[in-house]
Amino acid sequence: MIPKNHPRYNSLILREKIKNAYKLGYLADSGMIAHGRGEAFDYLIGEKTSDNSKIAIEASVAMILLAENPVLSVNGNTTALVIDDIIKLAKEINGKIEINLFYRTKERVDIIANLFKEKGWENILGTNNDELLHINNIESPRSTASKNGIYNADVVLVPLEDGDRAEILVNSRKKVISIDLNPMSRTSKKSTISIIDNVTRVIPSMIEIAKNLKNKDKDYLKEIVNNFSNEDNLKGSLKTIDLVKGKYK
Amino acid sequence: MIPKNHPRYNSLILREKIKNAYKLGYLADSGMIAHGRGEAFDYLIGEKTSDNSKIAIEASVAMILLAENPVLSVNGNTTALVIDDIIKLAKEINGKIEINLFYRTKERVDIIANLFKEKGWENILGTNNDELLHINNIESPRSTASKNGIYNADVVLVPLEDGDRAEILVNSRKKVISIDLNPMSRTSKKSTISIIDNVTRVIPSMIEIAKNLKNKDKDYLKEIVNNFSNEDNLKGSLKTIDLVKGKYK
Repeated sequence: MIPKNHPRYNSLILREKIKNAYKLGYLADSGMIAHGRGEAFDYLIGEKTSDNSKIAIEASVAMILLAENPVLSVNGNTTALVIDDIIKLAKEINGKIEINLFYRTKERVDIIANLFKEKGWENILGTNNDELLHINNIESPRSTASKNGIYNADVVLVPLEDGDRAEILVNSRKKVISIDLNPMSRTSKKSTISIIDNVTRVIPSMIEIAKNLKNKDKDYLKEIVNNFSNEDNLKGSLKTIDLVKGKYK
Repeated sequence: MIPKNHPRYNSLILREKIKNAYKLGYLADSGMIAHGRGEAFDYLIGEKTSDNSKIAIEASVAMILLAENPVLSVNGNTTALVIDDIIKLAKEINGKIEINLFYRTKERVDIIANLFKEKGWENILGTNNDELLHINNIESPRSTASKNGIYNADVVLVPLEDGDRAEILVNSRKKVISIDLNPMSRTSKKSTISIIDNVTRVIPSMIEIAKNLKNKDKDYLKEIVNNFSNEDNLKGSLKTIDLVKGKYK
């Protein structure tokens, strides 16, 4: 048990969730190492949602609400950290959820699918290997997608995603919203909107914003999206690191 | 197999060593997450030894050569990444090697001790729980040390060390040389010399410098140590991050 007054309590709780996912068998060992990278970058942005990130989150929700077929992509880390909130968000925006794993095995897919089913989300996509299509006919494990889900999605939310995968999605003319703590990663550089923030803060924030924005008309949402610049957003995120790091000088 | 032309080949090879250590049972799951944090900070310093770090490494070797009883502390991550070079360095500086684990179990200690024995290093310290003393009588798993090793050492090299442990060592008036990629970590802030660099680059570099410096007289070595400022060193390391990050702006 981690004492609640530990200075790094929140971070340690997330670490426990990641370790637990590994023990349950649905997280690859690389997923644990990736979590460590995330810890370091979260530390560098001060472990909170910046004003800059708030703008990116709002634009993302507006983009999702304008979509015809929005899909939330989930992997082991996302499942371990925010399974409940991902389900809430999917309900709120009337979207789909699809499993996409970097180290895909039938066992991991089945465990994750079952976790979602236990939480009441029956229709999770991307579970059946035989039904997966290859985006743009690219012969790569990074290109797979289900027909009714990511393959035909216009907007895809990809938390904690690999750079090659993000690039394939962007090249297929989908709008890609990534959640990645590293503003310099290939995923962050390629995405349509790059949310540089911790997925455990972003998804709850998206749910709250969606509750508000879904009552607005399309023009209102379009204006939010049009006013957003991802270039400014990435510059702003690098600036946040400077500000936090500056305290140590 | 990782292809040699992969843009992140070196980083992926290290990751394989860490995963392998976990599979062999001598690395805690937190050790994998810690490696991920290291990957992120190494990325931020450009994955190379800065001029600043070179100065810190030279001062560290001079300090070790001046020591009466220098000890190299090893844990699971250090063993996984640089076991051969740690043994070479211990021979070069005529020092001891002691096992100190954050998540200490008899099994992990035994596996690590056997790995060192297989490499020809028989007399590894810190293996026998019953013989461990508590530094400054502090009742904590972070305070344990072997009598002939860290307990009576004047200089301790701690690669990849926990902040509480580093603090206990410093408070017991030992000179502590840490190797830690995070210039803002408690370990880096507490240490006598904080080498902000990757242990896989630092230890081979220390061996080369030791070959040269061990032929010098004590006054020469003392001057190197006296000219070193750890405050300037830490500021320089933060500056390195700025320079690397600046390329992305």
